[in-house]
Amino acid sequence: MNIAIDVMGGDHAPKEPVQGALEAAREWPDVELTLVGDEAKLRPLLAGAPSNVRVHHAAETIEAEDEPVRAVRRKKDSSMVVAGTLVKTKQASAMISAGNTGALMTTGLLVVGRIAGIERPALASMLPSASDSGILALDLGANMDASPQQLLQYAIMGSIYRSRVDGIERPRVGLLNVGTEPGKGNELTKACFPLLEQAPIHFAGNVEARDVLKGACDVLVCDGFAGNIMLKSLEGAASFIFSALKTEFTRTTLTKLAAGILKPGLSRFRKKMDYTEYGAAPLLGIDGLVLKCHGSSDAKAFKNAVRQARIAVNNRLVGAISDEFSKWEAGEPK
Amino acid sequence: MNIAIDVMGGDHAPKEPVQGALEAAREWPDVELTLVGDEAKLRPLLAGAPSNVRVHHAAETIEAEDEPVRAVRRKKDSSMVVAGTLVKTKQASAMISAGNTGALMTTGLLVVGRIAGIERPALASMLPSASDSGILALDLGANMDASPQQLLQYAIMGSIYRSRVDGIERPRVGLLNVGTEPGKGNELTKACFPLLEQAPIHFAGNVEARDVLKGACDVLVCDGFAGNIMLKSLEGAASFIFSALKTEFTRTTLTKLAAGILKPGLSRFRKKMDYTEYGAAPLLGIDGLVLKCHGSSDAKAFKNAVRQARIAVNNRLVGAISDEFSKWEAGEPK
Repeated sequence: MNIAIDVMGGDHAPKEPVQGALEAAREWPDVELTLVGDEAKLRPLLAGAPSNVRVHHAAETIEAEDEPVRAVRRKKDSSMVVAGTLVKTKQASAMISAGNTGALMTTGLLVVGRIAGIERPALASMLPSASDSGILALDLGANMDASPQQLLQYAIMGSIYRSRVDGIERPRVGLLNVGTEPGKGNELTKACFPLLEQAPIHFAGNVEARDVLKGACDVLVCDGFAGNIMLKSLEGAASFIFSALKTEFTRTTLTKLAAGILKPGLSRFRKKMDYTEYGAAPLLGIDGLVLKCHGSSDAKAFKNAVRQARIAVNNRLVGAISDEFSKWEAGEPK
Repeated sequence: MNIAIDVMGGDHAPKEPVQGALEAAREWPDVELTLVGDEAKLRPLLAGAPSNVRVHHAAETIEAEDEPVRAVRRKKDSSMVVAGTLVKTKQASAMISAGNTGALMTTGLLVVGRIAGIERPALASMLPSASDSGILALDLGANMDASPQQLLQYAIMGSIYRSRVDGIERPRVGLLNVGTEPGKGNELTKACFPLLEQAPIHFAGNVEARDVLKGACDVLVCDGFAGNIMLKSLEGAASFIFSALKTEFTRTTLTKLAAGILKPGLSRFRKKMDYTEYGAAPLLGIDGLVLKCHGSSDAKAFKNAVRQARIAVNNRLVGAISDEFSKWEAGEPK
């Protein structure tokens, strides 16, 4: 299989993506990696590169501050759009990028194209949870307003992802809501609930935001607005608490000493809470695999993204989603 | 002034509400307190009660599990409905209850009645913040779906409350959103933003959930769904973090020792985070003051609610809201 990596995107491009790619190429010799970017900049980084790594030159770069749709339309020779074209033309089975999120979603939609029957592709991110497997949330801010039908599609795609890529046998799908009882919620979630009950998924019912981190489900569906409010509340609470603890812990020499003893445990926990550690976010509903790495990704994160892509391609993730929605299109019983 | 207290509502009724009322009556001799409830049950608790406390008998009680609208309609002689009637008939300036939230909102709406021009009353709750003044949020789950116009009304009412009751001169009103830039958000917040810009308030713009606890505003407006997702995410993150810390802190004898030293600081902080410590929630937009105490309120919380009611009545909170919305009704420039 061939995986294309946009090595010009992200805060540490091209050094970290290239290094991550080289490590991945050494670990998985069955994968061909195509590094897409400015050849002149990449060559010096490729000394001793294994034979399953090649460079595909792309002269332009989409920047973080570029307006997504315009950038994708105009920068046809950007590393991101070229990587998308490789997926579109089946020269690559997957693409990985840490670049501009909006531009990557646009590349997925306009360059690679969506799977027939999918209303709106969804960017699915991992949230940390008490269990180590995390929670796949669709979505956390990419599409602000969603219809009940779109949430239903998110649920099905997320469920297939977790079973195919993470090996969870019957992924529990939860609907983010303000209470666990079926009648709870706003107009959107009340209309969505019965659709999820009848969907070809293991629907675990409504999930309250306070139970998400406890690992109440494997897939969480929500509109992007509510999802983003949840994500930023979790982040805000964590940052507020840790900064307050710091104040308390540095109050006296004795508390400083005590805090020093507890520091390794605190660090271990903070690392676990860091959702950027949980791998790349797949853009689901696209007719090809598109993985979004966090902008601050280092070599290890890129290597992990290759691991994810490799599993997804080997387990026919995109084909499985496509099969499910072609049944759907044909009006078969779901 | 006369303040009616539904002493039959909440987890610790009637003991704690009565005790809180007695303490308040002693502290503020200018306030007349009317305890509404089952006289036979109350009498034994009233030994040594000061002369500004009296009992108004009500034979029934609305229970936590009662269906709100039905309960208010049928239990005409319940302590909650009777207290509402005292406000409606101007025998009391305010009512306080720790009972069934839905029933209290219904009592406000159906028994006391709304202020002319108010589309939907809002239950305004205090959130903790880094500053000690907290954030008044409207609302956190009472009305699931809201229109831009309703959020505008929340903003104005919340602003008047913070200035009249908490003495904040120009309360900063924030719109809960997924980014701070004006164009951000879902359909609701994008439509609401320009309304808030033109409102007779100090509009501080969009506020992200992660900045709420930092005290980015004094009044936060949001639909009940988003507000509740935020609240429960904050709670969930706090509970998740503290339980993980407990695990880390009890790992060895040494960490236990260290944790013991830090315990007072931790407890102080947890208390500050506890939003139930932040007083009663006013039901704004009702033509009379209605305060909701947390179900688990103790005597101190009831006493604090009397303090809040006393300030609100002295500073003509309800009159000020009514004045603002009568201008509104008359179509005056806002």
